[in-house]
Amino acid sequence: MSKIFVDACFGKKTPYTPVWMMRQAGRYLPEYMKVRAEAGDFLSLCRDPKKACEVTLQPIDILGVDAAILFSDILVVPMEMGMELKFVKGEGPLFLSPIKSEEDLDRLCIEEAAKRLEYVYEAIRLIRGELEASKALIGFCGAPWTLATYMIEGKGTKTYALVKKLIYTNPKFMHKLLKKVTEVIKLYMENQIKSGVDAVMIFDSWAAALEEDAYFEFSWSYMKEISTFLKSRYPEIPVIMFPKGISGYLDRIDGEFDVFGVDWSTPIELAKEKLGDKYVLQGNMEPTRLYSKEAIKEGVEKIVKVMKNQRHIFNLGHGILPDIPVENAKYFINEVQTQTKI
Amino acid sequence: MSKIFVDACFGKKTPYTPVWMMRQAGRYLPEYMKVRAEAGDFLSLCRDPKKACEVTLQPIDILGVDAAILFSDILVVPMEMGMELKFVKGEGPLFLSPIKSEEDLDRLCIEEAAKRLEYVYEAIRLIRGELEASKALIGFCGAPWTLATYMIEGKGTKTYALVKKLIYTNPKFMHKLLKKVTEVIKLYMENQIKSGVDAVMIFDSWAAALEEDAYFEFSWSYMKEISTFLKSRYPEIPVIMFPKGISGYLDRIDGEFDVFGVDWSTPIELAKEKLGDKYVLQGNMEPTRLYSKEAIKEGVEKIVKVMKNQRHIFNLGHGILPDIPVENAKYFINEVQTQTKI
Repeated sequence: MSKIFVDACFGKKTPYTPVWMMRQAGRYLPEYMKVRAEAGDFLSLCRDPKKACEVTLQPIDILGVDAAILFSDILVVPMEMGMELKFVKGEGPLFLSPIKSEEDLDRLCIEEAAKRLEYVYEAIRLIRGELEASKALIGFCGAPWTLATYMIEGKGTKTYALVKKLIYTNPKFMHKLLKKVTEVIKLYMENQIKSGVDAVMIFDSWAAALEEDAYFEFSWSYMKEISTFLKSRYPEIPVIMFPKGISGYLDRIDGEFDVFGVDWSTPIELAKEKLGDKYVLQGNMEPTRLYSKEAIKEGVEKIVKVMKNQRHIFNLGHGILPDIPVENAKYFINEVQTQTKI
Repeated sequence: MSKIFVDACFGKKTPYTPVWMMRQAGRYLPEYMKVRAEAGDFLSLCRDPKKACEVTLQPIDILGVDAAILFSDILVVPMEMGMELKFVKGEGPLFLSPIKSEEDLDRLCIEEAAKRLEYVYEAIRLIRGELEASKALIGFCGAPWTLATYMIEGKGTKTYALVKKLIYTNPKFMHKLLKKVTEVIKLYMENQIKSGVDAVMIFDSWAAALEEDAYFEFSWSYMKEISTFLKSRYPEIPVIMFPKGISGYLDRIDGEFDVFGVDWSTPIELAKEKLGDKYVLQGNMEPTRLYSKEAIKEGVEKIVKVMKNQRHIFNLGHGILPDIPVENAKYFINEVQTQTKI
């Protein structure tokens, strides 16, 4: 059965512009909070295929979005490579022993990591089994740069001082780390596809940490390596690239993939001008507009106006925030599906 | 006596490209740490004209930069408007009672705040008295948007959820707050000029928190109001605008000012293409390049190549980090002054 989301990824005409939201299976949903409480903590939820399946499907039922995105976290990859991970309440993720030396790096595994991620593949099989045939399931991973940053810094950072010190003083080591992560991700994404996802998305959440030349050397090249690998083997699976916050670098974006994810800080007109002929665009409503129905309506209208007759998938320009009223999220989805109806 | 920095701000030919660094009076200097320890804490240092003068002059003597920038903090403005401010070690600034209502806002003063900032004006008089005549003294303030964000959020934030909720649900209130801050800043900058600064810079550190339309409505319009006010009264004082991280919005930058500060995430080629004909550009070497002399040399060369025969002031694209070796900072300043010599 054809899926409106997948059709749109390949630039085919669809009865309306499909829509989903980053972090749509998340804390703003009371139903999610209930399952998460049962699971105990965030990581246990990621490792529990049945519960991960349950929360992945919630926004389909509650909001009527056109695609489900696998519930998981980008950091399960370095964790299963051998790095101990904790989620500290109110502070976010923490790797207890960040990478400091060649030995630390050599200790991490590749094939074994891809195998240990079996709980993700099992969740995908469960979800695809329950999800209606007309809806797509999106698999995902973090970009090697974003993952490597966490692996070096150990946690979130404002300055990226450790990892950026590394790229300017020991770029060889940084490339070794990035290559290793890239190898795991290729296996991981291939397994996600074999388990049943209908599309994949690569999140480069920390793309904006790098100056232009460094971005293309240390991040985009590895994202492209992954997308080229996947498109050569699975041309029927759309690949979505999402480098967050690099509106100044769009002239140099290239490669084999289908959809470019536009974050809210990149004007959609600019993305259309620079990339609209080559790629389908996904995005990019400012997520805090969801605090107000008036702001939602206006935000959707502005984007619809720019993207009229253009290949487009609707989304927020970043994840939905935990204190957004569910009613407003529903209103957003409905506005898109109504305003874009042919 | 003519000042190479001021000449460059007005696009005049200079014997080499003048250079200074954001946060050049800062923690990477042992001499700064000594004075700061004597002062007790950061805010006491800001409020002590003699000590503020001493640390302002240090990078002139130690590094040979072409301009001094007043040592102070953008948050002294809301503090003197009546908001209690603390700097918590390792966590940054904190307003104990953020603005939550019209009453909170109405309680804040305007003229009185500008008067209470007398310690800043006194520091400027002392610095200008001691600084050699060929070097410029830069005064500064935060942009109303950046200050208002701190006043609403109370502290640093990743999501800007409170202040962005406000702009989409109660824009009127946000404008009232921004207008009030703008009034104080006009008086404050006028007093800085009367006290002896040779140029002024408006820092919009949190410019990148806003989507394009919101940026021009809630931030740039107020920055322009301040620059128009200052240029109409003090045309001989250059005004530098520094909205950090808005590379996607450069097409809409306009107004009466002299220098546009380019942050490191905005490619200098892009800034040159979009703004180089209208404004002198300042920037924009990636500050973490200072970890390595090789990276410094390469970074300076790249920028010099792009900005050859273009009106330019050299700077980092953001503040220098506390763990940069002083030797590398010296190397950077020297590389610029040598590589750009006519």
